[in-house]
Amino acid sequence: MLMSELITKKRDGGKLTAGEIKFIVDGYTAGDIPDYQVSAFLMAVFFRGLDREETLHLTMAMRDSGDTLDLSGIPGVKADKHSTGGVGDTTSLVLVPMLASLGVKMAKMSGRGLGHTGGTLDKLESFPGFQTGIPHERFMENVAKVGMVIAGQTADLDPADKKLYALRDVTGTVNSIPLIVSSIMSKKLAAGADVIVLDVKCGKGSFMKTPADAHELAAEMVEIGKLSGKRTIAVVTDMDQPLGNAVGNALEVKEAIATLKGESAGDLLELCLTLGGCVLKAAGMAETVDAARSMLLGTVENGAALAKLKEFVAAQGGDPQSVEDVSLLPSAPVVRQLRAPEGGYIRAVDALGIGMVCLKLGGGRTTKESDVDLSVGAVLQKRVGDKVTPGDVLAVIHASDETHADAAEAELLRCFTIGREAPAPVAFIKEIVE
Amino acid sequence: MLMSELITKKRDGGKLTAGEIKFIVDGYTAGDIPDYQVSAFLMAVFFRGLDREETLHLTMAMRDSGDTLDLSGIPGVKADKHSTGGVGDTTSLVLVPMLASLGVKMAKMSGRGLGHTGGTLDKLESFPGFQTGIPHERFMENVAKVGMVIAGQTADLDPADKKLYALRDVTGTVNSIPLIVSSIMSKKLAAGADVIVLDVKCGKGSFMKTPADAHELAAEMVEIGKLSGKRTIAVVTDMDQPLGNAVGNALEVKEAIATLKGESAGDLLELCLTLGGCVLKAAGMAETVDAARSMLLGTVENGAALAKLKEFVAAQGGDPQSVEDVSLLPSAPVVRQLRAPEGGYIRAVDALGIGMVCLKLGGGRTTKESDVDLSVGAVLQKRVGDKVTPGDVLAVIHASDETHADAAEAELLRCFTIGREAPAPVAFIKEIVE
Repeated sequence: MLMSELITKKRDGGKLTAGEIKFIVDGYTAGDIPDYQVSAFLMAVFFRGLDREETLHLTMAMRDSGDTLDLSGIPGVKADKHSTGGVGDTTSLVLVPMLASLGVKMAKMSGRGLGHTGGTLDKLESFPGFQTGIPHERFMENVAKVGMVIAGQTADLDPADKKLYALRDVTGTVNSIPLIVSSIMSKKLAAGADVIVLDVKCGKGSFMKTPADAHELAAEMVEIGKLSGKRTIAVVTDMDQPLGNAVGNALEVKEAIATLKGESAGDLLELCLTLGGCVLKAAGMAETVDAARSMLLGTVENGAALAKLKEFVAAQGGDPQSVEDVSLLPSAPVVRQLRAPEGGYIRAVDALGIGMVCLKLGGGRTTKESDVDLSVGAVLQKRVGDKVTPGDVLAVIHASDETHADAAEAELLRCFTIGREAPAPVAFIKEIVE
Repeated sequence: MLMSELITKKRDGGKLTAGEIKFIVDGYTAGDIPDYQVSAFLMAVFFRGLDREETLHLTMAMRDSGDTLDLSGIPGVKADKHSTGGVGDTTSLVLVPMLASLGVKMAKMSGRGLGHTGGTLDKLESFPGFQTGIPHERFMENVAKVGMVIAGQTADLDPADKKLYALRDVTGTVNSIPLIVSSIMSKKLAAGADVIVLDVKCGKGSFMKTPADAHELAAEMVEIGKLSGKRTIAVVTDMDQPLGNAVGNALEVKEAIATLKGESAGDLLELCLTLGGCVLKAAGMAETVDAARSMLLGTVENGAALAKLKEFVAAQGGDPQSVEDVSLLPSAPVVRQLRAPEGGYIRAVDALGIGMVCLKLGGGRTTKESDVDLSVGAVLQKRVGDKVTPGDVLAVIHASDETHADAAEAELLRCFTIGREAPAPVAFIKEIVE
């Protein structure tokens, strides 16, 4: 088999066989096929697409390119959750303890933030002493005993995706639905869960700008998951404004804890109830959506979810006391209020812009090697649709010094669009695809 | 400027500026932009195309990527000829001496054969002692004094094309008209001639399979040539069967000499008269096509073209006696006749197939490093439309040993299609684009 002939075949609209796709993935992972042939192939895929069979073959070949996690020895339902990435998204820190406290086993491998999007591993390091890198044996032990783990990869999972993603990132081939599907699903399949719930973001702060694109991505991922023998559900949610009010590592952890204490509601809680409900129904643990929501809300009311978060933090070396007393978490020296210069209604809050403000405050990474200031960020006080009068606090900025706060203040103000008319209401949960 | 953004711009159908195209060409030539980004860009160009302005900018940027030849100090018309490549194509060895004997200065840089296509430099090495690599000063001196040079590159002309072509060859991005146009025209423009005549092959033995594709390529090259200030003409010619009867290095040289001696006519001579006529008209040396043809035929009849070939061979270190006495050229030890197994009409002679037979006889290169046996090949005795009776000689095989001759015999027979009906006549000269 010649790679140049496979490029030409796809370029001319041909359908690749399982063997041909495996040849490409294995050859690239092993370093036998060079970057420059794979990038030409990826661009041909961008234009010609992959049909569902080809996407499945690609997903399987990527899954099998490295180690896979075998959770079959752990009793109970094993579930996993993935988000296509947004701003102010602390879902994992709320949803995973909720589900784990109900007996669902959650073995979650997460990543670090890059650019305007945050990463769960960075957020977790806000807990003093917390270890995101734990040995494989301890990982498996904690899944079985605590019922939840959130950590970096403990094995060489899906090395094909690492190489392919890095290449796509610099060759204009990120925005291809079959390539996004295979990248996400191969990692999820390698991670070994039985139930997979996918949060597909839609809007200005995410890759999928329109509900139609988000639907297509969600539907393809669900089909590929099902064809691989996994119970898979996708929820399409709005990402025009940040999900939670907090943007910034420790600030988001504090919001997650407040949510688990029943002190904070809104879109973040709503999303956790929806995603969690999908998992409980797919796992056969709840008959109806309403029953599932009650079970999940019960874990907040009876303190079980918060207790599970404490147990989890302790099991990975962190200080469980910092869950109760959030003053033990990192906090920024300069706290400044951003006030509304005019009255009216909040018509838009630019999620991408706020992500960039947090990045410039030092709370994100511009390159993979950047240091992250866990304490900085912003907390929104107003959301889309809220009425404001001049002087109302729109957001609170947490900065390392006055200079950073000054810069953030001007940029953050530009993220708010205030108008005379209230905006038309937008559904937060747009669709459930199953 | 970020290369990834330029890839995305072209991918999405945007039009690149001169500056953006120069950034890509200069960055790639200098090694600042990696292969994997350029191959993705080339695939985006394959799908989205380049408009005429973009193609011109690309051609200019490639031309300017290295040295250019300055022929302005040499008096008279300077002409150059290019063929898109075929089988049994000895045009340069006939046409260049004809034109040089009429006073047109021909400074021609040629290449070596690869795969089923031959290269003029290999053919020329059939003359004992001939030097294809001559120093730049001698190159310029010979153009002025002898009126013709055919040699390898004496300077670092169009390094961008060398890198881009090598990359296109292995990434499925060869067959893109703007990329073919810029590759050919940038080299021709760097070589400094005032008049450029292009032989665009059309048919099974060439890149352009249909007259429509060949026309498009011819028209684009002529436009780019004119926009660059050069008198440019293209001739579209048939390449379903080999151009001449001989396929193989020394065999083709012998056919070229026979043509210059007036002992051989046919498509090869017709092509030289047509291409040469275009040059003489464009140079203002002939009023009409008929007058130009008479001038060119005159150089055969009065022996001037043959004398010019001898002078040229001598000026580049070769034995001029071998032009008069072709028994001094390489000859193969085994000569075998291929006879027709059945009678009828020759309906097709597969140019590509015959090129492959010659390659397997040892007359071509499978890799750039292969040694070439100059003596081997095949000479057709029948062409498309000829009537044959069983036992007629179809071709004569020249091989290094009996084993090679055996293999070639079977394969060569498959290159001839014999049928009961005479085929519909096909125009050899399909179109002149100017």
